Amino acid sequence: MIGRLNHVALVVDDLKAATATYRDTLGADVSEPQPLPEHGVTVVFVNLPNTRIELLEPLGDGSPVSRFLEQHKNGGIHHICLEVDDITAAAASLEAKGARVLGDGTPKIGAHGNPVLFLHPKDFHGCLLELEHVGE
Amino acid sequence: MIGRLNHVALVVDDLKAATATYRDTLGADVSEPQPLPEHGVTVVFVNLPNTRIELLEPLGDGSPVSRFLEQHKNGGIHHICLEVDDITAAAASLEAKGARVLGDGTPKIGAHGNPVLFLHPKDFHGCLLELEHVGE
Ligand SMILES: [Co+2]
Ligand SMILES: [Co+2]
Repeated sequence: MIGRLNHVALVVDDLKAATATYRDTLGADVSEPQPLPEHGVTVVFVNLPNTRIELLEPLGDGSPVSRFLEQHKNGGIHHICLEVDDITAAAASLEAKGARVLGDGTPKIGAHGNPVLFLHPKDFHGCLLELEHVGE
Repeated sequence: MIGRLNHVALVVDDLKAATATYRDTLGADVSEPQPLPEHGVTVVFVNLPNTRIELLEPLGDGSPVSRFLEQHKNGGIHHICLEVDDITAAAASLEAKGARVLGDGTPKIGAHGNPVLFLHPKDFHGCLLELEHVGE
């Protein structure tokens, strides 16, 4: 069912400083910061040859990553995102196997404009997994 | 300096169950478990089209991932590994920029037989980064 690793998401304490770390200290190709108010984050994409790292900073009140940053003061690895070619079928198959989809169980439009869902970390050995629909 | 994402490492509470989760629930290609006593872990490789997930379980006394599992009872995302073409040059460049290499500062032979090093999470916004030498 799962395909490529679409991205690894890191929550960071200071997006400007983290961007400089990846660009200047590690020599990576980084994007401009992109505010995504509807997702409660500002994101910088670190483009690697085979996948991406996303640097996330909370944006606005009630950001979904604020609590993570309270618990991990410097930041940390927040989730990994795996691609699926049919997210509706994936959600049905996962729920039939007893895995819980977070929220109301239906895919939402994610940061890249594709439908995404998040799976309960307790059903995946403590790892927060995002699934992203990329089509066939 | 950095190249491909070589792997994402997850520490899991139960390697057999986690392998079944990735194989049966998520439909991924998984390897047999490989005990690496010199690294204090047993590893299962989850082969994705563009990179790998490594599932790690502590092996023996003093495993480097035991304390992580005490702090994250179900498991969690432990580190990400980025490839470099010259790890000696990378270590020198990083230290010159003030980033700390863990341990005695010199690369060690890692789980894939290549030289690796780990960078201090406090210098990388809470993320434990491994660098792996893959040559030119
Ligand atoms: Co994501
Ligand atoms: Co590793």
